Amino acid sequence: MKQVNIGIIGAGRIGRVHAQSIANSVPNAKVMAISDVIVDAAKAAAEQFGIPQYYSDYHEILSDKAIDAVYICAPTDMHADIAIEAANAGKHIFCEKPVDLGLDKILAVKKAVGEAGVKIQIGFNRRFDHNFRQIRNLTESGKLGDAHIVKITSRDPAPPPPEYAAVSGGIFLDMTIHDFDMARYQAGSEVVEVFAKAAVLVDPEIGKAGDVDTAIVTLKFANGALGVIDNSRKAAYGYDQRVEVFGSLGAASAENDTPTTVKFSTQDAVTQDKPLYFFLERYMQSFADETKEFVNAILEDKPTPVGIDDGLKPVAIGLAAKLSVKENRPVRVDEILG
Amino acid sequence: MKQVNIGIIGAGRIGRVHAQSIANSVPNAKVMAISDVIVDAAKAAAEQFGIPQYYSDYHEILSDKAIDAVYICAPTDMHADIAIEAANAGKHIFCEKPVDLGLDKILAVKKAVGEAGVKIQIGFNRRFDHNFRQIRNLTESGKLGDAHIVKITSRDPAPPPPEYAAVSGGIFLDMTIHDFDMARYQAGSEVVEVFAKAAVLVDPEIGKAGDVDTAIVTLKFANGALGVIDNSRKAAYGYDQRVEVFGSLGAASAENDTPTTVKFSTQDAVTQDKPLYFFLERYMQSFADETKEFVNAILEDKPTPVGIDDGLKPVAIGLAAKLSVKENRPVRVDEILG
Amino acid sequence: MKQVNIGIIGAGRIGRVHAQSIANSVPNAKVMAISDVIVDAAKAAAEQFGIPQYYSDYHEILSDKAIDAVYICAPTDMHADIAIEAANAGKHIFCEKPVDLGLDKILAVKKAVGEAGVKIQIGFNRRFDHNFRQIRNLTESGKLGDAHIVKITSRDPAPPPPEYAAVSGGIFLDMTIHDFDMARYQAGSEVVEVFAKAAVLVDPEIGKAGDVDTAIVTLKFANGALGVIDNSRKAAYGYDQRVEVFGSLGAASAENDTPTTVKFSTQDAVTQDKPLYFFLERYMQSFADETKEFVNAILEDKPTPVGIDDGLKPVAIGLAAKLSVKENRPVRVDEILG
Amino acid sequence: MKQVNIGIIGAGRIGRVHAQSIANSVPNAKVMAISDVIVDAAKAAAEQFGIPQYYSDYHEILSDKAIDAVYICAPTDMHADIAIEAANAGKHIFCEKPVDLGLDKILAVKKAVGEAGVKIQIGFNRRFDHNFRQIRNLTESGKLGDAHIVKITSRDPAPPPPEYAAVSGGIFLDMTIHDFDMARYQAGSEVVEVFAKAAVLVDPEIGKAGDVDTAIVTLKFANGALGVIDNSRKAAYGYDQRVEVFGSLGAASAENDTPTTVKFSTQDAVTQDKPLYFFLERYMQSFADETKEFVNAILEDKPTPVGIDDGLKPVAIGLAAKLSVKENRPVRVDEILG
Repeated sequence: MKQVNIGIIGAGRIGRVHAQSIANSVPNAKVMAISDVIVDAAKAAAEQFGIPQYYSDYHEILSDKAIDAVYICAPTDMHADIAIEAANAGKHIFCEKPVDLGLDKILAVKKAVGEAGVKIQIGFNRRFDHNFRQIRNLTESGKLGDAHIVKITSRDPAPPPPEYAAVSGGIFLDMTIHDFDMARYQAGSEVVEVFAKAAVLVDPEIGKAGDVDTAIVTLKFANGALGVIDNSRKAAYGYDQRVEVFGSLGAASAENDTPTTVKFSTQDAVTQDKPLYFFLERYMQSFADETKEFVNAILEDKPTPVGIDDGLKPVAIGLAAKLSVKENRPVRVDEILG
Repeated sequence: MKQVNIGIIGAGRIGRVHAQSIANSVPNAKVMAISDVIVDAAKAAAEQFGIPQYYSDYHEILSDKAIDAVYICAPTDMHADIAIEAANAGKHIFCEKPVDLGLDKILAVKKAVGEAGVKIQIGFNRRFDHNFRQIRNLTESGKLGDAHIVKITSRDPAPPPPEYAAVSGGIFLDMTIHDFDMARYQAGSEVVEVFAKAAVLVDPEIGKAGDVDTAIVTLKFANGALGVIDNSRKAAYGYDQRVEVFGSLGAASAENDTPTTVKFSTQDAVTQDKPLYFFLERYMQSFADETKEFVNAILEDKPTPVGIDDGLKPVAIGLAAKLSVKENRPVRVDEILG
Repeated sequence: MKQVNIGIIGAGRIGRVHAQSIANSVPNAKVMAISDVIVDAAKAAAEQFGIPQYYSDYHEILSDKAIDAVYICAPTDMHADIAIEAANAGKHIFCEKPVDLGLDKILAVKKAVGEAGVKIQIGFNRRFDHNFRQIRNLTESGKLGDAHIVKITSRDPAPPPPEYAAVSGGIFLDMTIHDFDMARYQAGSEVVEVFAKAAVLVDPEIGKAGDVDTAIVTLKFANGALGVIDNSRKAAYGYDQRVEVFGSLGAASAENDTPTTVKFSTQDAVTQDKPLYFFLERYMQSFADETKEFVNAILEDKPTPVGIDDGLKPVAIGLAAKLSVKENRPVRVDEILG
Repeated sequence: MKQVNIGIIGAGRIGRVHAQSIANSVPNAKVMAISDVIVDAAKAAAEQFGIPQYYSDYHEILSDKAIDAVYICAPTDMHADIAIEAANAGKHIFCEKPVDLGLDKILAVKKAVGEAGVKIQIGFNRRFDHNFRQIRNLTESGKLGDAHIVKITSRDPAPPPPEYAAVSGGIFLDMTIHDFDMARYQAGSEVVEVFAKAAVLVDPEIGKAGDVDTAIVTLKFANGALGVIDNSRKAAYGYDQRVEVFGSLGAASAENDTPTTVKFSTQDAVTQDKPLYFFLERYMQSFADETKEFVNAILEDKPTPVGIDDGLKPVAIGLAAKLSVKENRPVRVDEILG
């Protein structure tokens, strides 16, 4: 095989992001079909990105022999079922995060994928971000020494609608889940204990919907390092995505990316750009890069860089964080994983 | 009164810092005497800073009618007793932090000071740091909106000797106590609950001495805001002192000060200065500025900016943090304060 | 017309850059053919970027009725002749810089283009750079007030082979020509006088070939502002591209772009990334953006943003700079333009 | 001798700056007397800085046997005469810049100082600035390789009164003279040729007074390096003082100092501090440091770091720059020096 033929299931925002980045930046992959229950969305995406086929029913993709791999970009509650079907159809799988809000379904996906012998990669694209990958490279090279503290700042520019809280599983499974994956990635170690302190400071409606919008999460890793994440659903100045790893030999920290480097100095102040607006701007390159590695894993028959266990663990940590807030106590991840 | 005549009790490092900054930068104050049980230290300081009198016994200072105020720069376990004697002698008091490692003695100081009608200021000099004061100014001006998250990074360049752990009360009462004060100062609100996660990652000897060297402390404030402090006893690159306040309208963050702004670009890398080495370099101006405000409080008969309750609260938070580590649970500060 | 069909003449580095950026980033344009005297180069590019036709002779492109516009990416000494032929063939023209090393040929192109009524855009892509465009926006918005000083730093990571000096016209027509265009663009005014001081400090072979490798060029603009450009053919740390406009109300300055924002702090130093390596990395987005505007100018029948006079003036300034170095005196541009 | 006893001639701004910095920061020097034709100014300074004697006539200082060295802080046109008298009186001399606006008088000072065998230091304090000294250290260490380009940005926050142009000698002898010294200091080589392009863009009254307010000055050094200075009498955002040395192995550049490192991010923008306001704020430490070296040169009988030739050369360069503007041509410094 010299080219991976891809079908995309779901033509919403993230599905289109993958269609575009594959078309522009991944020479040895081609999107052959896209599906969406809203067939007009699939059709529009097909036209925009030059995709030969579009469908309303994703089973058309699964039954297409010419398709090697599927991107599961449907709503979260359908991820696991589609993934299992795709595995059974012998397709390699790229699955958006979270795989599911419950551990049982993720374990079922793991089983199906293992039995089918197909590859799966979870869409934790931030691991492929230029800044965060460089920090990881410094740790892996030994230049930072032993990791002591992993610090993640992760703040969104605006909260989702309050009613989203219910379907999303709440801030820890929807938003912080990326940070839990980043923490594991940067520490090079598993999280063993979580303490989360949370508050409703951005919008009382979020609280009424049973969720929180501001949080500090302390992590303890198996290798002895500590971690801390601070989250807010609304940073007035935009998307705030910073990581710092502090080790025995030094520290590596990444500032936000900005649209330009221009500094504007006047009588009143010196001003600079705000961070890139949101995840599409900030992480666009990482979407292409995660796909490049997924495609290479298929073409060269090697493990994907973000496997099914990487889909499982952050959900477990997220569930531990929810329990920690509820009971105001540190929660061990193995209480959740069993 | 046009000039405050000062006696300094203790001619160690911090006593000499005050002597120097008063001599150079505080025109309406004059150090008239300095004492130290090691009289040669007092003599040397007197010569270096042009102080007319030196003694081995601080009671000579307390009984000198010409002296208006004393700086208590003796070891921590003598702070409270000297402060009470000084109050009874009618001297205004500048007392280094912590006032004491126990709450009872601090309360006794509070009583003595109240009865004597003298002023007391606690040496939380970092409130007077140019960077951190500007962040506070932004919060107070309303430009940050409501405070949501107060973040403090506080890392030392090198740990004290392990045996210091016992006399110092441990990391939370010796080092983090500054950060607890900073957190209260920046949040403009009292800490109501503390969760501290700690580890021994820098030096096993510190652990054997019963202390920790790395910590993440989560705070909950009375006004609903959250706080987080990360500490290490040893940052390879030097003294790391940063503060960030994130509010509903924006964020203010301070980077470290550096010796120069020079950027050096070569084939290998672009390099810049490390932070200023340690607290004497970083906070020198703040020592002068805290004294200016102390002297003004005396001359203009107004409250000092850092009173006895500001000496009490951080000790209580520190004791809560110690208990939190011991019992691995969040601890309410009123469990400690009673 | 809804789509502009493009033929690319020249399949060298810059021809392939345009082919790639059009394919990935310009939805309403399509490269239909590419030619190169080295036909294998044309073939390889056609395969890589999905271009339907490739030729060794560019006349095949000029005679293809389906092609609306040509990109002239051939060697500089062929630019003008091809441009005149293309104009006569009724093709819109995108011509790489410099149009020619002599003014007569550029004027001949201007005449041919005017008579044919086709559009021409010159490849001064840096005008479309995100940083430099933002500086221009600030000036145009009036926020900088009147421009007083335009400062450009432009240093290459490595010199071209010394023998390149002869064919390229020397540093001022090959390298600084971009900066002359940038100076006019940022000042919003024409250059009236040039003084160039130059030296051979990088490589004596460059001097033997009759060129210089280091230069400071002072400009006087028609609106009274001053300008200064500093050039080097070899910056050890890579490609150094900075612009600053200083005006009556403030200053706007752009730093280099870097691969990441990561700061790495150790006992030895704090290090950061070097600038993006060379023009392909730094200006990749600008190549797409200049084409977007070229294509829009065709589709909407409006002037191109960088016209034939913008191709003429920088060459005149470059010739003035050469004369200035030769005679060690300021040279008025109208001495050159006549 | 263990302490240098100093008399200050002139109690204006710069005289008081020296009085204060000596009092606060130079332990082995003491100001014993200060004089000013406005005797109340001398008296006020004496009181403020604890100076035992004050006079209206500086000859009282010159005839005081107890005084070892004088600081000449009188108006420029008196510098040379006082310096010669002081040399004849056997006093070491610290002379503010410029020594004189004409070369003859400076040469007369040189002769008198040489005959008397006293030391002289010229007040080019910026050589002692922490940032610029570090750049020089990098060059001297060889880490930058051969110097290719020295770049200086020097802009004042506000112009002096237009009538000041006549007495000051104009921008090149009053303001740029510091930059000419800095250029020589950073290049480690003498300036051999100057081309200055100037304009009146800040205030037409400055032009009417025969001066200019905006300038670009190109320098050629004896070692082959090039230099460039850009000046403005009015930067809306304050005092802009930056230096960059570009060499064969890399570049070192200094940004402005700022009051704080605080970054304030809101919905509208990310803002930071403007530069420190003016020379008193920016260069305060350098005033103390130049005196420390002057005092050490006396106590240890070694050459001062900035001698009489360092007072002569920048004046010659300044005169060359004036002539260059007048005749619009490059001027060799030996045309001026003869």
